[in-house]
Amino acid sequence: MQPIMSAQAINDFLETDFPQIHTDGRVFTVTSVRPGGLTMTFDPNERHLRPGGTVSGPSMFALADVAAYAAILAHIGPVALAVTTNLNINFLRLPQPSLMSCDCRLLKLGKRLAVVDALLHQGDPDHPVAQATATYSIPPRTE
Amino acid sequence: MQPIMSAQAINDFLETDFPQIHTDGRVFTVTSVRPGGLTMTFDPNERHLRPGGTVSGPSMFALADVAAYAAILAHIGPVALAVTTNLNINFLRLPQPSLMSCDCRLLKLGKRLAVVDALLHQGDPDHPVAQATATYSIPPRTE
Amino acid sequence: MQPIMSAQAINDFLETDFPQIHTDGRVFTVTSVRPGGLTMTFDPNERHLRPGGTVSGPSMFALADVAAYAAILAHIGPVALAVTTNLNINFLRLPQPSLMSCDCRLLKLGKRLAVVDALLHQGDPDHPVAQATATYSIPPRTE
Amino acid sequence: MQPIMSAQAINDFLETDFPQIHTDGRVFTVTSVRPGGLTMTFDPNERHLRPGGTVSGPSMFALADVAAYAAILAHIGPVALAVTTNLNINFLRLPQPSLMSCDCRLLKLGKRLAVVDALLHQGDPDHPVAQATATYSIPPRTE
Repeated sequence: MQPIMSAQAINDFLETDFPQIHTDGRVFTVTSVRPGGLTMTFDPNERHLRPGGTVSGPSMFALADVAAYAAILAHIGPVALAVTTNLNINFLRLPQPSLMSCDCRLLKLGKRLAVVDALLHQGDPDHPVAQATATYSIPPRTE
Repeated sequence: MQPIMSAQAINDFLETDFPQIHTDGRVFTVTSVRPGGLTMTFDPNERHLRPGGTVSGPSMFALADVAAYAAILAHIGPVALAVTTNLNINFLRLPQPSLMSCDCRLLKLGKRLAVVDALLHQGDPDHPVAQATATYSIPPRTE
Repeated sequence: MQPIMSAQAINDFLETDFPQIHTDGRVFTVTSVRPGGLTMTFDPNERHLRPGGTVSGPSMFALADVAAYAAILAHIGPVALAVTTNLNINFLRLPQPSLMSCDCRLLKLGKRLAVVDALLHQGDPDHPVAQATATYSIPPRTE
Repeated sequence: MQPIMSAQAINDFLETDFPQIHTDGRVFTVTSVRPGGLTMTFDPNERHLRPGGTVSGPSMFALADVAAYAAILAHIGPVALAVTTNLNINFLRLPQPSLMSCDCRLLKLGKRLAVVDALLHQGDPDHPVAQATATYSIPPRTE
């Protein structure tokens, strides 16, 4: 599974084609792409925080979903529009109100379905703050 | 399973204790409470919409999570602070950019864990736009 | 969503085409079919029980999976071979070593994906022993 | 997270305390234990196979569940009786009717909840046949 888009190309594509992910600020950035996966960082601002100084659940859901979507994009190119059909997320530890990384790995990249594992952590992947598994339906590609 | 808080009491509690759920506008409202469940409505504004005129995934995640949390609150009162540990969501149909309802049902309300089923629809529960199952950890109650 | 197979027709089809579900005895029976759903019963024998007199997890997984599969079959007929792609199960209460029912409801029956909700109980659906949501990939149908 | 039981000690414990997992033959074996995880193999026999020469879904569910349970046991010892509360499994590829490995990793080992990631493969972890995430409730320990 070789990626066919660079981190920069994915960030540019998200910028132009999915500006809505930047509604609450330019917080999501693909920092590295590798065969079968990528890492996206999330730099939360006050809109993503909760009293007690933690990061909101919907923000972490959004991070897992956008990062997994980007991981698929990186490997099939910006042609097809994948749609999230299922996302299962485990909240493991209370996050700090600071930078969060999401390491994604393609478990399957089929013609019709892709399944991605997403590990959310704040520096130590052995003590993740959340873990998600997401499934995307990939529409038939017209030639 | 008899509720011990009214819809109004839950809305008041969310208003004072969870003002952050209103960050993007006063969009979540408990409209009815019943034994073992409740219904919350979500009135999306432009912050929750996506190009093509649909409702964003993180918004629907937030609706399921807040509604399920409210369903627990309705039955144990505003004393304990339940924490989401797992949420599994299936996106079933593209939603319209209009009012969405979330019908919640307590599948289990134990001393340590509560599990809630949440059905998201736009008028016809037989054609839901999403379905979620969420688990909450309930902290030990001090006497 | 009108079913096109009767309970008897589904049981006959499972008998001839999926004899392996009867490996541990004739324990799974569709008892009723309705628009958008059906009920299957599971009559556990000693192979499905666990010390302490409860029903094994894999048996309950099998019940949810077979019942959800049967619910799809009931509505599209015995032509297509649906494949389980995801199953999320919550174990809610320790079951008794006795008859278990699984009430299934189609949340979505699309051309490519079907999603089914399955509630496992022992007489009182308001106190379920488990709840599952399962997704099936439906292969393209040849004309 | 240092394990406190060896592979042999876990296999012996499962043998004496959970003989029911061997109902269909001695098919599950812990082969290695490491900090934060372990690997269990599953050697399917005809009871676990399906027409077409693949491995049954309930067998893979059982493998993920037993292996994840063993991973917790390895790190807290054979004192507490953890109970599965949620298991989410993605079926990714049709397995061959041959030896299957399950690599488990503890995502969280708390006082009340443990969450384990389980990857099922047949030699190549980059092409898994299934992936599961399971949550266990750990009962209060009496001193």
